Amino acid sequence: MSRPSRRIIPSDEVVEQLQKRRSSGTPLRAMFSSYLGGVITDPALMALPIDDHLVHRGHGVFDTCTLAEGRLYRLGIHLDRLLRSASLARIEHDWTKDDLIEMVIDTASASGLRNGSVRYWLSPGPGGFSFSPLECEEPCFYCVIFDSGHLIVGEVDLTRDGFNEATVTDTPMKPELLATIKSNNYLLNVLTHMEAVDRGGMFGILVKPDGFLAEACVLNTTFVTADGDLVTPPFVGILSGTTVRRVLELAESHLVPEGLVRSVSQEPVRADDRRGKGSREMFLSGGDTHIFPATSWDGVAIGDGKVGPVATRLLELLESELAAGPAAGEQRDFIEVPYP
Amino acid sequence: MSRPSRRIIPSDEVVEQLQKRRSSGTPLRAMFSSYLGGVITDPALMALPIDDHLVHRGHGVFDTCTLAEGRLYRLGIHLDRLLRSASLARIEHDWTKDDLIEMVIDTASASGLRNGSVRYWLSPGPGGFSFSPLECEEPCFYCVIFDSGHLIVGEVDLTRDGFNEATVTDTPMKPELLATIKSNNYLLNVLTHMEAVDRGGMFGILVKPDGFLAEACVLNTTFVTADGDLVTPPFVGILSGTTVRRVLELAESHLVPEGLVRSVSQEPVRADDRRGKGSREMFLSGGDTHIFPATSWDGVAIGDGKVGPVATRLLELLESELAAGPAAGEQRDFIEVPYP
Repeated sequence: MSRPSRRIIPSDEVVEQLQKRRSSGTPLRAMFSSYLGGVITDPALMALPIDDHLVHRGHGVFDTCTLAEGRLYRLGIHLDRLLRSASLARIEHDWTKDDLIEMVIDTASASGLRNGSVRYWLSPGPGGFSFSPLECEEPCFYCVIFDSGHLIVGEVDLTRDGFNEATVTDTPMKPELLATIKSNNYLLNVLTHMEAVDRGGMFGILVKPDGFLAEACVLNTTFVTADGDLVTPPFVGILSGTTVRRVLELAESHLVPEGLVRSVSQEPVRADDRRGKGSREMFLSGGDTHIFPATSWDGVAIGDGKVGPVATRLLELLESELAAGPAAGEQRDFIEVPYP
Repeated sequence: MSRPSRRIIPSDEVVEQLQKRRSSGTPLRAMFSSYLGGVITDPALMALPIDDHLVHRGHGVFDTCTLAEGRLYRLGIHLDRLLRSASLARIEHDWTKDDLIEMVIDTASASGLRNGSVRYWLSPGPGGFSFSPLECEEPCFYCVIFDSGHLIVGEVDLTRDGFNEATVTDTPMKPELLATIKSNNYLLNVLTHMEAVDRGGMFGILVKPDGFLAEACVLNTTFVTADGDLVTPPFVGILSGTTVRRVLELAESHLVPEGLVRSVSQEPVRADDRRGKGSREMFLSGGDTHIFPATSWDGVAIGDGKVGPVATRLLELLESELAAGPAAGEQRDFIEVPYP
């Protein structure tokens, strides 16, 4: 940790210093800033003004998508959610969905990266340190493209190996409005994860006072019941997950015909009904392509305690969809990035 | 608003561009960053890495203090709260209170400003975009000094003129843990303020489901009852305000002997008991020196509907304390900034 220093650092030295700090490798490849009106590829300068209300007041919303084989996967559905979040957070701007798509494409193109992660934010912008957005100069859109790998924790590949998940009881849930807006007010999500790790879990399962399941720290929870029904809670007081929505579609179109599940539904899930032998499988999903199979919950095996065929098949379907791109004639969920 | 541009901006041009954007006047005077190990005085470079977990996950805590006549006023009490917030937010660091004091002094000194605002943040630092602080390089401390004026909204000086305050009913309260930690997860506070303005108020009063008062968007609420008792709610599920704590001290030491109030207490306050003729005065406090007298609440006059003698006297006491500095032999709440 740096110790206090009275030294005033000249502007050119600041940039040099930041470049030195970033030289040991960062996943950051490109950042668009509407405040600058262009794309930055120097990680040292990928920063937000400290007086941006997103930074100091949490007045900011974000969303993500995935860059796969040079194509933006499901950007549209994520931008729809971003625009809903911005509206609920009362961030005024006049960007259309097409404007946002263009800015994301430009960032991806400048990054040169063909496989990676995309994240973007909308904020009322910089201008001061009060709580009122009236002092902000102009709304800002920021987008970054970064290199990402599998989520491997220690020696465990969470998408393949199975793991124990833990119910979190000390960290409170967000109020419904805050849980519905995808904002950067994620302190409780972070603490949910940290408490889960303390309890021998990973993401942390939040159960409502009435015994019904809410969600995991940044993921949705899905079960295959002992009878073979795939169920996940409705999006009430939890985030409307884009991945779980694709999971529901793929389950209908593939898993039911293939006989892997009997039915597919979104309905309230009582935690106690789904523990132990009450479920064949339990998995968490998010980030477009992540299916994390929990093989035990609070130390008790789910089903036979092994990664099950439904989670395995869904991961396969998502990964092959991502790798193959759109079927002939179908462009809906993919945007080709024009690289220089 | 900037429109999309495919242009990649070279690093030196980024700095120039930022300097141009900041040239039209910003209140920012100096920023310390432990990540850089020094103080920046160029507002263009006062920014946080976009991958700092404070920025994108809200994993960050902050506090404030006031710079008055070249002295830091009540930095200690604010730093005690910052350290409590950091602990509750599980931000690990090895800075002592004295380390933090030094960094704030250095920033104030470099700013050259003798009267202004101080704000500082603690975060797990930059390092990636997940929710886990394990990926962060090192904890970071950031501090800014900025020029601040009276809070004057339109033609109204809120500390002198009186105004209408509004109860907020659509914006939910934070869960107790989140309300107790002074973090940058302030989206609900911002929305509380915005709803209050929609309802003809200013900061917004939050009332709990049981009818007892909580707090205002970023301020504590205090009343003088019809019988002359000064009351404010206890710090349960609301922020422990440093200004209202000083108000309670000053009320005991000055207002009771002067006969302006009969008693001083911190106790649960039923909103309905304090409306209209139930109170002589109602005021909100925060930011070390701000006493905002609400002369009506939801359109109904408080007491005789004028700014009262208690609010006026408290503002006078706080302002003269700030201007005069410590009494002979008393250094407790003031730190002299050594300017170059």
